[in-house]
Amino acid sequence: MDTTIVREAQRVAVLAAREAGVLLKKLFEKLDSSAFQHKDDSGDLVTEADHQAEAIILAKIRQAFPGHQVISEEAGDNRLASDWLWLVDPLDGTNNFAVGMPLFAVSITLMYQREAVMAVIYEPLTDRLYEAAANGGFRCNGRLIRIGEPRPFKKATVGWIQGHKVQQEQRAVRLRQHLDANTKRMMRLWAPTLQWSMLAKGDLDAIILYNSEGEDLYSGMLMVREAGGIITDYEGRPFTGMSREPYLIACHPQHLPFFRGLVHNGLVGK
Amino acid sequence: MDTTIVREAQRVAVLAAREAGVLLKKLFEKLDSSAFQHKDDSGDLVTEADHQAEAIILAKIRQAFPGHQVISEEAGDNRLASDWLWLVDPLDGTNNFAVGMPLFAVSITLMYQREAVMAVIYEPLTDRLYEAAANGGFRCNGRLIRIGEPRPFKKATVGWIQGHKVQQEQRAVRLRQHLDANTKRMMRLWAPTLQWSMLAKGDLDAIILYNSEGEDLYSGMLMVREAGGIITDYEGRPFTGMSREPYLIACHPQHLPFFRGLVHNGLVGK
Repeated sequence: MDTTIVREAQRVAVLAAREAGVLLKKLFEKLDSSAFQHKDDSGDLVTEADHQAEAIILAKIRQAFPGHQVISEEAGDNRLASDWLWLVDPLDGTNNFAVGMPLFAVSITLMYQREAVMAVIYEPLTDRLYEAAANGGFRCNGRLIRIGEPRPFKKATVGWIQGHKVQQEQRAVRLRQHLDANTKRMMRLWAPTLQWSMLAKGDLDAIILYNSEGEDLYSGMLMVREAGGIITDYEGRPFTGMSREPYLIACHPQHLPFFRGLVHNGLVGK
Repeated sequence: MDTTIVREAQRVAVLAAREAGVLLKKLFEKLDSSAFQHKDDSGDLVTEADHQAEAIILAKIRQAFPGHQVISEEAGDNRLASDWLWLVDPLDGTNNFAVGMPLFAVSITLMYQREAVMAVIYEPLTDRLYEAAANGGFRCNGRLIRIGEPRPFKKATVGWIQGHKVQQEQRAVRLRQHLDANTKRMMRLWAPTLQWSMLAKGDLDAIILYNSEGEDLYSGMLMVREAGGIITDYEGRPFTGMSREPYLIACHPQHLPFFRGLVHNGLVGK
């Protein structure tokens, strides 16, 4: 793998994410001030935000790396054959954006042979820029962050991420309910990238992910790994690549036995 | 009731909420940039935020209305005998604030003979100022907002608010689970005032509240009523005053039968 490409990709991704984020912030404020009068138009404004932010990012990637494969939420897959694959989510947290909640982000990931090597997440409302590169560490607004000693907790704060199709799945309901009852707080934000970055910077104790795949996962997972976190399946097997049906636990390495136990108990209904 | 007092109170509350909000925003950003290095100090910073914001608000209320009763989260109850009671929550969403989530607000309510007559909510990160006065309407950033025709929905977006003690209560778990499975999204923000204001401006279809009482409720409830929403107990009886153990449904009046049915089915376990 050519690390010059990764460094240049990071530069491009940061520029693209910031520019798209500025636009999203502007449209969020516009939505806010117009929504009360023209509630029916607000759906259009959200779609517009999604499309325009995506257009900004895709243009920058295409210009710099015309031969790379790119998969994006709206534009889809450009189907170029390449070892390099960009995953673009121009507006993670669309539903939050639509209802005026300031929990949304731009997410851009570069994969090499199906493994994340570089990622950028930008949170426009708080102006937080998260960056990670494989073996290059995790940064928030330029500052290197590493998970240190695990934070002790009486009850954990856990982020829950689930796929669209599992809302009524009995096993998922049981696990979710178990976490809800046995943690301090089970957080479900409808903006996965924000949860991953919260875990990476130490504001969550763990993420439990239930069969949710998409462009919005791999950026944050790289951040968590680069910060020193561990990501495994429910049986404790390390996870690095991509999967169509991931079931994952992410946390501080020393907390893994605890969260594996918690998930296990939730699944068997203890 | 002297409406001159209410108008003057609103002026004072707006000033106090804004000033406290500006401070909170500053401390939120400070927490953000310092948290990674001094995670242990972050708890102190949150306490400091709470106390300083409260001090700003209480000073302004005391100066303008020295004879009024005031109940505040940290300072407690000043125990003055008065028809006028101020409920102050300087930092609704403390837990969000602490973990770097931009979902928190200042909430100030004035009650007259135990009924809310004026309220102000200020959201520092989005710079939204919500105001309501009894029979004076609901405003967001100066703009009058009224719930119009009910928005049609296939599946509703519902805000869930529960008390601290009900996490493991079987009836609450059953209802919460029922809502989770039978709505588009069940939102639980740990910042009740933000949910009430979302309902008042039409970004939520309903709020279901399960035995949660506190200073952070009555501001938002006044906003919802002034916007044209209805608030009843689970049996459909209108709710206006204060209660130590409220179980409530808030929504567009035309949606009440629907949400009463939803809650009923959740409680009986259908």
